[in-house]
Amino acid sequence: MNDSHAVEILLVEDNPHDLELTLRALKKAGIANRIQVARDGAEALEFIFCEGPHATRRIDDVPKVILLDLKLPKVDGLEVLQRVKGDPRTKAIPVTILTSSKEQRDIVESYHLGVNSYIVKPVNFESFSTAVQNLGLYWLLLNQPPA
Amino acid sequence: MNDSHAVEILLVEDNPHDLELTLRALKKAGIANRIQVARDGAEALEFIFCEGPHATRRIDDVPKVILLDLKLPKVDGLEVLQRVKGDPRTKAIPVTILTSSKEQRDIVESYHLGVNSYIVKPVNFESFSTAVQNLGLYWLLLNQPPA
Repeated sequence: MNDSHAVEILLVEDNPHDLELTLRALKKAGIANRIQVARDGAEALEFIFCEGPHATRRIDDVPKVILLDLKLPKVDGLEVLQRVKGDPRTKAIPVTILTSSKEQRDIVESYHLGVNSYIVKPVNFESFSTAVQNLGLYWLLLNQPPA
Repeated sequence: MNDSHAVEILLVEDNPHDLELTLRALKKAGIANRIQVARDGAEALEFIFCEGPHATRRIDDVPKVILLDLKLPKVDGLEVLQRVKGDPRTKAIPVTILTSSKEQRDIVESYHLGVNSYIVKPVNFESFSTAVQNLGLYWLLLNQPPA
């Protein structure tokens, strides 16, 4: 989980229950390796911009996708998104919002900031699992990442 | 196909063979209705910006996704992408490049211009069909579109 060279998914999620469900669904889809978990927005930024514990990581060693929750401690998801999309070194990294928020304000602001995709977490357990599997397969196998 | 109010997918493709395969795959996925086809970049821009034959369409009546080939007659795909992502009225529309080009230059430039996703057309017929079905379902059912 911490071999930063091989990270394919940066999963930013503070809710332990949602985190476990997401990891389990990715595992079910056969893509559980090479996931870096960040439990708040500050941890996510440290990973993305190679600071703190990730100072030896190379910034051009980009994940294939960032799965980003919106409501996060310390630095919230929209600010993380803004930092990623506002920096030419990281702007090409695909970012998918994965949130329980259906608020039009969050959706509009995310697209305005340049999000690649916005997914509302299904409430139902089975649907949540299927959605995570599909989005994992989409961004890891179907989408051609930058670099 | 021409009820612009209901358009969910704008499919921009000049190759008749790829167009037929794509439409057939979307039909197989159960999402063949509400597709607008543009056969070159100029036709695509007329639809998106409500000009020419689409002058009565409302610009905020956005499709859920634009599937955009790169090598197109009249106006090429990268220019269409640039126009869409450079205009605040249309920038939030999800755009997925669907191309045979694996050239790093095209990939980098597409992400630089703000593409939401970049998919290389699989050469194999079955894989092409599966890829189109998956991407259609992703952008129509899983992704939360703007507006």
